[in-house]
Amino acid sequence: MDRIGTREEAAATTFAWRPAPLAAVVIDDSFWSPRRRVNREQTIPFQYAQCQDTGRIDALRLTWRPGDQPVPHPFWDSDVAKWIEAASYSLATHPDPALDAQVDAVIALLASAQQPDGYLNTYFTLVRPEDRWTDLRDAHELYCAGHLIEAGVAHFQATGKRSLLAVVQRYADYIATVFGRAPGQKRGYCGHEEIELALVKLYRATGEDRYLRLAQYFVDERGTQPYYFDQEAETRGTPGYFEGHRSHGHLRAAREYNQAHLPVREQTEVVGHAVRAMYLTTAMADLAGETGDPTLRDACRRLWDHLCARRLYLTGGIGSAAQNEGFSGDYDLPNESAYAETCAAIGLVFWAHRMVQLEADGRYADVLEQALYNGVLSGVSLDGTRFFYENPLASPGGVSRKPWFGVACCPPNLARLLASLGQYIYSANQSAVAVHLYVQGSARFTVHDQEVTVRQETEYPWDGTVRLIVSPRRPVEFALYLRWPGWCREVAVRINGEIVDPAGQIERGYLRLARVWSDGDTVELRMAMPVERVYAHPLVRADVGAVALQRGPLVYCLEEIDNLAPLERVALPPEAPLTAQIEPDLLGGTVIIRGEGRVLDEQGWGDTLYRHEPSMTRPATLTAVPYHTWNNRGAGRMCAWIREAGSDREG
Amino acid sequence: MDRIGTREEAAATTFAWRPAPLAAVVIDDSFWSPRRRVNREQTIPFQYAQCQDTGRIDALRLTWRPGDQPVPHPFWDSDVAKWIEAASYSLATHPDPALDAQVDAVIALLASAQQPDGYLNTYFTLVRPEDRWTDLRDAHELYCAGHLIEAGVAHFQATGKRSLLAVVQRYADYIATVFGRAPGQKRGYCGHEEIELALVKLYRATGEDRYLRLAQYFVDERGTQPYYFDQEAETRGTPGYFEGHRSHGHLRAAREYNQAHLPVREQTEVVGHAVRAMYLTTAMADLAGETGDPTLRDACRRLWDHLCARRLYLTGGIGSAAQNEGFSGDYDLPNESAYAETCAAIGLVFWAHRMVQLEADGRYADVLEQALYNGVLSGVSLDGTRFFYENPLASPGGVSRKPWFGVACCPPNLARLLASLGQYIYSANQSAVAVHLYVQGSARFTVHDQEVTVRQETEYPWDGTVRLIVSPRRPVEFALYLRWPGWCREVAVRINGEIVDPAGQIERGYLRLARVWSDGDTVELRMAMPVERVYAHPLVRADVGAVALQRGPLVYCLEEIDNLAPLERVALPPEAPLTAQIEPDLLGGTVIIRGEGRVLDEQGWGDTLYRHEPSMTRPATLTAVPYHTWNNRGAGRMCAWIREAGSDREG
Repeated sequence: MDRIGTREEAAATTFAWRPAPLAAVVIDDSFWSPRRRVNREQTIPFQYAQCQDTGRIDALRLTWRPGDQPVPHPFWDSDVAKWIEAASYSLATHPDPALDAQVDAVIALLASAQQPDGYLNTYFTLVRPEDRWTDLRDAHELYCAGHLIEAGVAHFQATGKRSLLAVVQRYADYIATVFGRAPGQKRGYCGHEEIELALVKLYRATGEDRYLRLAQYFVDERGTQPYYFDQEAETRGTPGYFEGHRSHGHLRAAREYNQAHLPVREQTEVVGHAVRAMYLTTAMADLAGETGDPTLRDACRRLWDHLCARRLYLTGGIGSAAQNEGFSGDYDLPNESAYAETCAAIGLVFWAHRMVQLEADGRYADVLEQALYNGVLSGVSLDGTRFFYENPLASPGGVSRKPWFGVACCPPNLARLLASLGQYIYSANQSAVAVHLYVQGSARFTVHDQEVTVRQETEYPWDGTVRLIVSPRRPVEFALYLRWPGWCREVAVRINGEIVDPAGQIERGYLRLARVWSDGDTVELRMAMPVERVYAHPLVRADVGAVALQRGPLVYCLEEIDNLAPLERVALPPEAPLTAQIEPDLLGGTVIIRGEGRVLDEQGWGDTLYRHEPSMTRPATLTAVPYHTWNNRGAGRMCAWIREAGSDREG
Repeated sequence: MDRIGTREEAAATTFAWRPAPLAAVVIDDSFWSPRRRVNREQTIPFQYAQCQDTGRIDALRLTWRPGDQPVPHPFWDSDVAKWIEAASYSLATHPDPALDAQVDAVIALLASAQQPDGYLNTYFTLVRPEDRWTDLRDAHELYCAGHLIEAGVAHFQATGKRSLLAVVQRYADYIATVFGRAPGQKRGYCGHEEIELALVKLYRATGEDRYLRLAQYFVDERGTQPYYFDQEAETRGTPGYFEGHRSHGHLRAAREYNQAHLPVREQTEVVGHAVRAMYLTTAMADLAGETGDPTLRDACRRLWDHLCARRLYLTGGIGSAAQNEGFSGDYDLPNESAYAETCAAIGLVFWAHRMVQLEADGRYADVLEQALYNGVLSGVSLDGTRFFYENPLASPGGVSRKPWFGVACCPPNLARLLASLGQYIYSANQSAVAVHLYVQGSARFTVHDQEVTVRQETEYPWDGTVRLIVSPRRPVEFALYLRWPGWCREVAVRINGEIVDPAGQIERGYLRLARVWSDGDTVELRMAMPVERVYAHPLVRADVGAVALQRGPLVYCLEEIDNLAPLERVALPPEAPLTAQIEPDLLGGTVIIRGEGRVLDEQGWGDTLYRHEPSMTRPATLTAVPYHTWNNRGAGRMCAWIREAGSDREG
């Protein structure tokens, strides 16, 4: 039976869909496959080398002694864990004995670093052994545990090996003895959410309820009074790890920084550190979907609506302020100073992915796609070896990606997302298959206990035509849900060449094609993909008078290198035609947008600084490239929002 | 003989004009007189009280001992000196026995604080007696001396008393023994220019060449190699007073900060701390005018041209960056973050005033007027008791004037400028009288050894009509120069009712009316004063797409309090008519500008953050007030530059 019903019905249920498992999905397109190959061949090895060169691997040998350089950092284990996770995802789809052995070797080191009681954290084992669990707010101890757990689950699911899974189960079981509401336990939770979503994964991988209960405990306890972080600080009597630049005692902003200002079900606005916020909401959606808790689901919806209505960059970037690496105020979305951390956009993909499964609503997948193709993908260079931590929507020049960071969360986060991309494309349940993203490739599903293969053929995101070939072993009835993207105004559908009127088939952002599917049945989806002008809500001060260009899911930008005219002085008249043009040799093959703009003319000004006559303008051909590919050809100026002004004062 | 000739002739001469002395000028208009009355009745007493309450007066008693609070600050003497200077100017035009006695009392304290060798500085006498002259770069020692000298000259000229003049002459004579190129002397100069222009004043007041030579020494020595500040730092072996936040050793920017990067004649760009730059160029122009040195005059012209072409706000504010309280890059004139220190605009008035006398060219008086009526006057509230240090051209709200500052240079600088305003209005020489500013009142001149009175009757700056009544004792031939302001496109002139064609009478920005003037001869000048739109050079990134409003010399701005529409979202269509309207009860009597603008409409957006259709706009009456009066009715939003956009998308 099709479990997808009205939203009211859904509210009473658990997950509507489950994502197709990674190993069941093949990607063989022209857009993602090269990025994923670079990810396998460059990024994952490069990041291993970085972990090794910076001492992160060696730290696991526990031979560090006070005075040695470098001193292990509280985050180090998480970088290693994310590397294992990324490598495991890669192994799931692209077996590689050398990588497999390399992962095994690091896992052996991790296992050897685990303490007799199950504890596993190099920083607190080596550098501050006396301070275990004394600084949950700032020291990222449970955060690192969460990443180890995610790595253990990914490794198990990819390889079937339990080597790391067993380690992290022991660690999680030990953590469960330390934290909770029983006498003698600490009623704490981590300042940087992560372990919550990891424990849900561990529950799914092992079927052990106790991990789900521990996740639920951490989520439920958060933000309750008396505030744990206050009590902890008082008990500890010393500043936290980041004291001085963060966490100002009893101020609301300090509590909001790690979403600990209110119990999660009472939170109505996304606030604070953006990555933390996303990891929390991801876990909330996970718990809502696993337990059917309507109060958590409602909280997720409220927070989602607030984010999307007030605090989301067009690129899917979130968290506008560097100061807290997070959210500032409603509609405060500055372009040049946008923080928009890569990890935060990735976190939004995680959350959106859970919401899609939970609500079976395309609006979540719209945001997932928006973030993925823009504010996430901009985080890594085309050659896979340089990364953005921040993803501004405008640059005065001089900004460029870096090979690594002291706080190196973003590069391995990108690597694990690209390596696991397959799981974001499809969902299924007993009576339905859903296609969220259009990516050439194929996937296997089990519908009504029958294996069904769906193959996509498409040049998406460069072209809006997608052919889907459905291949069940035997004819079988199910509903094929094809997402009608929010960016798309017009879609034409044919099944086996027959035109289907999409009007009656729309269900929460999906075309619902229910029928008995036979081997070779083919759906052709033609999504009109013209260049679109996009405008921001008038309260977004930074974008007043400006227009952005989008084609399909891709947000575009002007880069200095493509435009003779200085970007600060160009404008795009409202009526200027815009054309898309394929450039096979540019940026690894891309589609550019061209339009006739105007540029303020310096001529006639001489040494005059102010005058009564406005500047004349002259024509200037504007060339825009996909935002995610900016900064691959030098650190020139860039802008995603372009002043929109008339062509009335022609020179 | 009329000394004003071609610019080439002028280049070979000394000052073309001399300003009318303060005591010869009466101001009785409706614009400045109330501000000057407030300055006399509120600001000058208030600032005395501040000097007293903060310990600045008591410090002169030299009773401070280590451990006492407050600790005297290196700048304190300069604040007292500027107060004496302001009070003296006031006494020159408005005798006030109580104030006179108060000044005498402070002078007596200063005299008693003077050391046997002539030295006079409370900070270095009390707090760091062993460090005299060891930190010229940062400790403002000669700067304070300069302000004392200016005070001494002003007091002497206002009252005829030599009490303070004698003190500062002794001090200057002592300084002349310490600094210079003779063996055993220090070849230094001050990090904050000021003493140079003060010594020229002392020379003019006393006729003693040695003060002019000492000024010339300080100006000539500046920026020569080896760099004095480097040698001084090395000899001292300890950080300077501001080390840590300023002066990074050998970096060019650190040298530019105090204009010590090059000998002054080789400098071609205004750089560094803006007040310092202005005080230096003022002294350079003074020296050029007193000595006829063409190389200094050329340097002044080059620096002036650079400033006006690249680094001048429309308000006459200068120095865009808070970081160095000074200049950043060419065309870098951000509005909201504009530093535009009040003292820097005042310094520009000083420099412009010297350039007018030197070159007899109205373009200097244009800038003087621009700064005076906008970026200077904005520095003080209408009630005379609150001050802006920074004068941004846009505000997000929450910014307001303060009663005083830890570094309190701006309030007394404003007080002395307002009190001495008379000297900026007129100049004269043996054969000419020049009117630079239109201010109702009168002035006495000596032309061809005859006394001539000129009376102005006008409502300037609210109205462009000026009647000038010339009253020589006996008919006398001279040229009356009336400035044709740069903001004015059309002027009509009548002499005794007869129309005069101005076309043939124009000389470097002045109408030159040469004739035999008889008692009661009346010139009527009608300067058209419509509301003007002003545009910035297209390289001024901050003002691209924006328009400013000006009427006469006054730059206007939108304040939140007058406009229902949110300022961030308003636009003024290029064709919108703009009308000026007298508002006798607003802001002490003002002229506002009204125009029909458009505001982006939130309606129809709901919770949508981005969409394909631009916002509709709705009409919004825009009301602008003179920029200098902003922030007298609360700390709302403000902008001087308004987005200029069409009215095509009407809601």
